Amino acid sequence: MAEHELPTLYHAYLACLNERDLDRLGEHVHTDVEYNDAPLGLAGYRAMLEGDYAAIPDLRFDPVLLIAEPPHIASRLAFDCTPAGELFGLPVNGRRVRFFENVFYQFEAGKIRRVWSVIDKAGVKAQLLPARDSFL
Amino acid sequence: MAEHELPTLYHAYLACLNERDLDRLGEHVHTDVEYNDAPLGLAGYRAMLEGDYAAIPDLRFDPVLLIAEPPHIASRLAFDCTPAGELFGLPVNGRRVRFFENVFYQFEAGKIRRVWSVIDKAGVKAQLLPARDSFL
Repeated sequence: MAEHELPTLYHAYLACLNERDLDRLGEHVHTDVEYNDAPLGLAGYRAMLEGDYAAIPDLRFDPVLLIAEPPHIASRLAFDCTPAGELFGLPVNGRRVRFFENVFYQFEAGKIRRVWSVIDKAGVKAQLLPARDSFL
Repeated sequence: MAEHELPTLYHAYLACLNERDLDRLGEHVHTDVEYNDAPLGLAGYRAMLEGDYAAIPDLRFDPVLLIAEPPHIASRLAFDCTPAGELFGLPVNGRRVRFFENVFYQFEAGKIRRVWSVIDKAGVKAQLLPARDSFL
């Protein structure tokens, strides 16, 4: 696969997510996709995204840093959103939160085959606490 | 900078950290290093590492995935350790915890100039809870 192809594929995947066009998710994500070293599968991946959309009505995936070395992509995703109720078990209740996800993808035959993600859940929690606890 | 140089520089930086040879940290980290979009500086970076070593006597940095596209490196670091007391505000108290950090580095003149890190603190918390809460 050419060096330039992976970012193109990845941006098409993010566009699919931002358009919430999950009927086309299988064009970007492998049937046997794994997530953080555990099997998830395309159906499980779709269910995970549907849960994300339900929790965060204004969810958008915004890549602020992208590093490509085939067959891998690394992406730093910025989120700026107002989750409706709970997020990551935290009572956000419509407040605005901003957080990041640093995530790696391994592509296989043009589709995302493995994902290793870390989301800054502690950063979301810090935004919900009084200022004196904001270092947590 | 040649494509192959960055991983070599990065492995030398990790060796410095694992040898706890912080007098040589300035060979790998820029004087004006930034951390998660905030100024930190070499002295602040060293203090951060000294705090990590104090909290985690058996701390080791183990890169399990490395992606290089100059001037950036993306690394997934695995930690398998027994923090002595509190870690990330959590009472670990000598128990074994395993967690990941997904981190990006921007190099400048052969040194780390900017770092964007997300540590799976929620994953550490989950390991300290009863099994029924392990999905958090």
